[in-house]
Amino acid sequence: MQDTLRIRDLIERVTAMPGYTSSIGTQVVDVAPGEVSLRLPLRPELVQFNGHFHGGVVAGLADHAAGAAATSMLPPGRIAVTVSLNTNYVAPARGEYLLAKARTVQTGGTISVATVEVTAIHLGKETLAAIATVTLRAVELPST
Amino acid sequence: MQDTLRIRDLIERVTAMPGYTSSIGTQVVDVAPGEVSLRLPLRPELVQFNGHFHGGVVAGLADHAAGAAATSMLPPGRIAVTVSLNTNYVAPARGEYLLAKARTVQTGGTISVATVEVTAIHLGKETLAAIATVTLRAVELPST
Amino acid sequence: MQDTLRIRDLIERVTAMPGYTSSIGTQVVDVAPGEVSLRLPLRPELVQFNGHFHGGVVAGLADHAAGAAATSMLPPGRIAVTVSLNTNYVAPARGEYLLAKARTVQTGGTISVATVEVTAIHLGKETLAAIATVTLRAVELPST
Amino acid sequence: MQDTLRIRDLIERVTAMPGYTSSIGTQVVDVAPGEVSLRLPLRPELVQFNGHFHGGVVAGLADHAAGAAATSMLPPGRIAVTVSLNTNYVAPARGEYLLAKARTVQTGGTISVATVEVTAIHLGKETLAAIATVTLRAVELPST
Repeated sequence: MQDTLRIRDLIERVTAMPGYTSSIGTQVVDVAPGEVSLRLPLRPELVQFNGHFHGGVVAGLADHAAGAAATSMLPPGRIAVTVSLNTNYVAPARGEYLLAKARTVQTGGTISVATVEVTAIHLGKETLAAIATVTLRAVELPST
Repeated sequence: MQDTLRIRDLIERVTAMPGYTSSIGTQVVDVAPGEVSLRLPLRPELVQFNGHFHGGVVAGLADHAAGAAATSMLPPGRIAVTVSLNTNYVAPARGEYLLAKARTVQTGGTISVATVEVTAIHLGKETLAAIATVTLRAVELPST
Repeated sequence: MQDTLRIRDLIERVTAMPGYTSSIGTQVVDVAPGEVSLRLPLRPELVQFNGHFHGGVVAGLADHAAGAAATSMLPPGRIAVTVSLNTNYVAPARGEYLLAKARTVQTGGTISVATVEVTAIHLGKETLAAIATVTLRAVELPST
Repeated sequence: MQDTLRIRDLIERVTAMPGYTSSIGTQVVDVAPGEVSLRLPLRPELVQFNGHFHGGVVAGLADHAAGAAATSMLPPGRIAVTVSLNTNYVAPARGEYLLAKARTVQTGGTISVATVEVTAIHLGKETLAAIATVTLRAVELPST
């Protein structure tokens, strides 16, 4: 319990730091050991030519969710950084917001692997837009 | 020649359209058949907690460069959209700007494949930050 | 029902044809629309230096399971061939046999995507050894 | 020089050990620091339904070449094992033999990344059949 609070606090703080994740409006929805959900509302500066979320934005959200999920399984003082990010786009990311749900499938001393489902919510209907597999490695958390 | 001009014009227009690629400041550097280079200067809203370009930004730039390179090999009226995007991060993307150089390795009736090298330029020194392999498929260009 | 029988028959026949899948001993376990399970017993010629299933064998089994699952969703006369195969190895593939369970997450006119879990069964205990994401495209079934 | 001989010897020995790589007939062609080429002649038990090399065989050869190239950059007593293997099939692997040429693009204390080109040689003509990106990690070489 205590630990879930610590992890949620860490993920909220990293997400809210000045930079990419905060500037695009990333919201932390749920945090549990090995599972993190993020939410990203649509903004004009996040779309591609057809008005849907840009593929880079989808990949970036998946990446951040996977990093948070993997980090949630690490001991205090360590953070997971991405080694590789594989994203498959299975439907247009069209909607008022995206949801990225990440789940760890491996946590080792060095390597973690998380899978992510990114859905687009349009008029209350949720459509799977992308799946991602993210490989990460654990490093010391830089003191901030 | 004529055709290279047409392709460059198309890529410049798609990149400059309101949305993600223009809002982050993506610049088209070079366009040749099957090869496109993009440049992305550093901005505070593109970084992660350590001040380097965020992995999602790196992936998005690679994606856009690959899409442009693949599209450059298609007949007029068709555009390449991403099926899958695989990015390996090999060094911190630290620098004043990124360069993404995409090159097609396959152009079929349906499927294209492009590889991308993303380098970070810091104080004039260029470091390979990420490599990506992008699978795309050709669709009709939406009339705009 | 009729259709499930047709699909199972097709997958059994393709798996049993002279060549790689039959020579290594691939067995079809379950076939349902969009879901296929394969089984591969251990043989001395399938191992790597440590006695576990070789990574190439694991990837090949995942590939075949994904192809079968994707093909099961196509109309008669069409077969899914692999465009890209992404495999993450999450634990040693140590055991008396492997099970590969593939499930389609997208079936389009051109592109299909399937995810696969490969588990290794050792002394009755099942361990997740690898996950794979496979992108495929539909082609005409060669008449044989 | 001495070191290249040591590395070549290690790769030859690992490749020739009883198991998958020797049973399919893998040959070591070239070994240099960070670069390894392998050759695989066609055999009836390596093909898929159309008579071309099976995708799993192509992936396995790429994997072994990448592992050898990554290991060649490690200090004595360490070996690179695969974390993830991403293969794109860009043309049918049709020919009398395959050539896999692997090259490391990153060698870290923990993680290595290698890219591989697999070509098929048919009647003296070499065609790019697949490209792969392989992520590996260094482990202690098991004493054998």
